[in-house]
Parts: sequence; C-alpha cells; structure tokens
Amino acid sequence: MALKVSDIGEKGLINYILTKSEDIVADDTAITEFKDTNLISTCDMLIESKHFPEGMSYFQMGFKAVTVNVSDLAAMGADPLGFLLSIALPKDLEVNSFKEIIDGVVNACDYYKIPLIGGDTNEASEIIISGTALGLCEKPLMKNTAKIGDMICITGDIGLAALGFNLNGDNIYTKKALKPLARLNEGIIIKNSGATSATDITDGLASELYEMKPDSLGFMIHEDKLEISDEYKEISSKLDLNYLDLLLHVGEDFELVFTIDKDNDLDIDFKVIGEVNESDKIQITLSSGEVAEIENRGYNHYVS
Amino acid sequence: MALKVSDIGEKGLINYILTKSEDIVADDTAITEFKDTNLISTCDMLIESKHFPEGMSYFQMGFKAVTVNVSDLAAMGADPLGFLLSIALPKDLEVNSFKEIIDGVVNACDYYKIPLIGGDTNEASEIIISGTALGLCEKPLMKNTAKIGDMICITGDIGLAALGFNLNGDNIYTKKALKPLARLNEGIIIKNSGATSATDITDGLASELYEMKPDSLGFMIHEDKLEISDEYKEISSKLDLNYLDLLLHVGEDFELVFTIDKDNDLDIDFKVIGEVNESDKIQITLSSGEVAEIENRGYNHYVS
Repeated sequence: MALKVSDIGEKGLINYILTKSEDIVADDTAITEFKDTNLISTCDMLIESKHFPEGMSYFQMGFKAVTVNVSDLAAMGADPLGFLLSIALPKDLEVNSFKEIIDGVVNACDYYKIPLIGGDTNEASEIIISGTALGLCEKPLMKNTAKIGDMICITGDIGLAALGFNLNGDNIYTKKALKPLARLNEGIIIKNSGATSATDITDGLASELYEMKPDSLGFMIHEDKLEISDEYKEISSKLDLNYLDLLLHVGEDFELVFTIDKDNDLDIDFKVIGEVNESDKIQITLSSGEVAEIENRGYNHYVS
Repeated sequence: MALKVSDIGEKGLINYILTKSEDIVADDTAITEFKDTNLISTCDMLIESKHFPEGMSYFQMGFKAVTVNVSDLAAMGADPLGFLLSIALPKDLEVNSFKEIIDGVVNACDYYKIPLIGGDTNEASEIIISGTALGLCEKPLMKNTAKIGDMICITGDIGLAALGFNLNGDNIYTKKALKPLARLNEGIIIKNSGATSATDITDGLASELYEMKPDSLGFMIHEDKLEISDEYKEISSKLDLNYLDLLLHVGEDFELVFTIDKDNDLDIDFKVIGEVNESDKIQITLSSGEVAEIENRGYNHYVS
C-alpha cells in the first residue's frame, strides 16, 4: 500500500521540505540577511476543525492567529515589523462572525504593536486563518545553541492550556487555552540579556527540548522546579489525565523556553527548571527522586 | 435574516479589513519602508476545491502556489527576496503526492529565482497551500497612478486560461490554465522603463482596470488590439461561451496590465490595447465600431 501523509507525520513532511531547499534555516523562523540586520519571517496556519477548541469565540480565533505567528518572532528575540493575514471563510458564515475574527486580529496586532499591513480573503468549507509575521533582528536567538552549564528556564507556567482544553467555564486554564499570549517583549529582553538559545512552547516542553538539544549535550529538568500546583494535580487526576503528560507533551502555552548562563542580569519573571549537561539525554528528576528519560513526543498533526 | 459572507462578497470583506488598519496599502502587496528601500510582502492562499482545475497535477498545484504570489511582486516591479510555504494536507493523501506538490513549489522557486526560506505543515480536509512572497523595491510601481494620455498595455495574450478551464487535452489554453507563469522579469523591466501604473491580471482585465482607474480619468481599450484569434472565437462559440466575456471577466492569466507614456524605450514584447483619457469611464471600442461600457465584474469568491 502506498505510504500516506499520516504514516510519516509532520516531521517527515518537514524533513522532506528541508532536503529540497538549502535556504531554509531549521529554526522557529526564516532568517534573511539584509542591510546589516536580518529580516525575520514566519507563517502559521490555523484551521477551524484542528486549532480552535470548543468554546473559542470568533474574536479569540483572530487573536490566536496573530499570537501563534508573533510567538515565533518572540522565540528569535525579533522586533515586530508587520503582519499579513490570509483568511478563508465558508460562504454561509455570518458577516458579524467575520467582523469578530478581524476585530480579534486587529486587537492582537495592537496588543503586540505589529502593524497589520496586508490581507487576502478566500472561500473554503471551514475557517482557515493563515498569518505571516515579519520582524527584524540583528542577532537572532537560535534554537539549538545552548552551552554546557547553562540554566534551562521558562517564562511562565506551562501546562495550563493543556488542562484548559479539557475544561469548561472561565478559569486560568481555559483562559490560557482560548486566549494565549505570545511573549514578544520577554523574547527581546531574553535575547538582549545574552541567552544562548530559545524557542516557544507550541508542541509541548518535551518536543521543544528535543528540538533545542545540541549534539552531545543533554538537558536535565526537575519536576519540583516546574511549580505544579496541587489544584493542577487534583483536576488532572479527576479527569483521569496524567499531569506530567499534560505538562510535557501538549503545549499551546506559547511560553518561551530558553537557556542562559547562570551569571546573568535577566530582569523578567522566569523559572529555572533545569540545566544543560553532558549526558546526551533529555531527562527529568521526578519529585520522588527518580530520574526518567523524557519521551520525544509532542502534538503531531496527522496522528489522531 | 443575518447577513452572510456571500452577501457582501470578497470586496465587502476586504473593505471591512481596510477600515480597520491604517497600515494597509490598497495595492497588490504590502509596502514597508526600510533602510532606503521598501520591503514588499504579499500572501495568497490556494484551496483545492476552489483553485485547482480538473486535470491539474500535484506538481502544477505547487508551482501555481508560487506563481500567484510572485505575480504580485511582478505587479510592483519588485526583486524577489524569499518565499514562505504554509501547507495543509488531508492525512490520507499519499506521500508521493505531497512530494510532487513540494517539487512543484521548489521548481517554481528555482524558475523565479526566489529562495524557499521557510515552511509549515498542517492537517486539513483538503489541500490548502498558502504562500508568502517577499521582495525588495526602491520605487514600487503602484496600481492606480496612470496619467492622462498614457498607453494601456498588456504583457501577452489574455483569456487563454479562461478558455483552458473549459477544455481538456494539451493545448495553449489548458497549458495556461494549468501552469500559468508570473511575469516577474517583465515587471522589473516595466517599472525601470518608467511605467506609470501596473497590476497583474488575476480576476480578469475588466476588474483590474476598475482597480487601476484613477479618480476622474478613464480607460478606452480596443477589441481589435487584443489580437483575438479566429480559433479562440470558434472554440468559444462551440462551447456556447462569449469570447469577450472570457477575455474580460475571468482572468487567471497572470499577465501584467500597465500604463506608460507613449514616448518610452520599453524593450519587451507587449501589446498596446488602449489609452488613458478623461472620460471617467472604462470602455471598449468593439470591432463593429460600437463603444460599450465595460462591466465591473470579475471572478468573485463567495459567489457560486
């Protein structure tokens, strides 16, 4: 039987594309040298049936379409330059719903101070919002350039969105699932403070750590440093979900994970969750004291 | 009853977006001033059920996704800088079909000498290819800045794709429908030769002329100057299609229509099809000698 897209998964597809172009940087964004600086560009598509959880408003869909793209700029430490919107809509969608989506896009562009510079509309059987974020950055913060001895840090709490996808009502979990925010300013500050590497957490911390891991180096993170609340564990347990699984393998938080020398003057809120070592492995020290290898498994389109 | 997207059409949607952002230039692309030049950016999405005619191969789908975006750079006279690909695929699509699409994209990027700098993949119920083309241009060639007395010109034959959509087999019409080419080099030459305005013909010549028309000026084009072949008229007639309707109101040719002073040294093949006047109307002189107003009607998504 012929091999299907679902057989090779998203990474298989990306790898094929990478073999076909020498001009693609395997990082969060494209980087194009230009007049003493770099043009940073990235595109991400959101599809109604895949990316918009139940209960998400049209406004939140529009807002999220900007956030997912701006989050890639944040991961590079880039200054925002402009946002392009390409949107496809079912023809029987109400005009008011369309307007709410656009208002969400515009509100997000205002929030991130990135001008909405262009747009394109189309017809489709479901809502598709494809965005392109452009930015500038003299020295982009790359993904897999951590140094031995660095601390591994995150900008906020992770796992909230993952739990929120399984909940209803208005709480810190659903808030993060329905209206995540990109860490744009934090990304710029992190880069300027001499961080050695960074990426945004979209597919889960585990998957991002595997993307960040330099050859021959390893990462050790510590469950106790993730500051997981008792409430988080209780709700997960009631839903019959493993809290560590939610924290490590789902993502959609749009927090940044980065590495930085212990001796730094980084002036934002962040958590130190581990350190870069020579183990060549990605491991977690559990609260029990046990050390476990973290599986390389994150959110994968094409696998349902 | 609540107003639907199909009630206000593509132009209604675009107009709403335009009222929401002061940073959008109403032209073929976004224009961002940057270090003594302009960053030109544009995004266009192709959707399997809407944009890929019967008989189009996967390779041709990928090629066309680049062409539609590069054609917008051509309309500004911009030099290509980079192409970003965002693609969504059904999970049961064969991997070989995916590879053919990517080969089409890569082949087109080579053809237009625009580096493929980034990509993103997703799952959807049908094939969706969203592209972003980036370019540079010191003095972009705008859309509605024609001067009185200018000649109205096109880069090649129009209407071929429109007829090709109604035909099978391998001929000049289906070739243009299945594998259109953007006039990138011509766009740069046209701009450098002092053309006063330009756009690419995607929604039909009529619709583009209405987009190009400056306030209080008018356009007169001449049927005889469109060089419509007898064969074209015969095939249209056999298919019970009005040949002028095909020529003026369908598009998808990706030829450029531009205005330029009569006294110019433009060194490419082009056809003079009319002139800019003070009529405040868009008209055609038919072969019969009769003068008719051209309807403002082109390809419109959301209207089936």
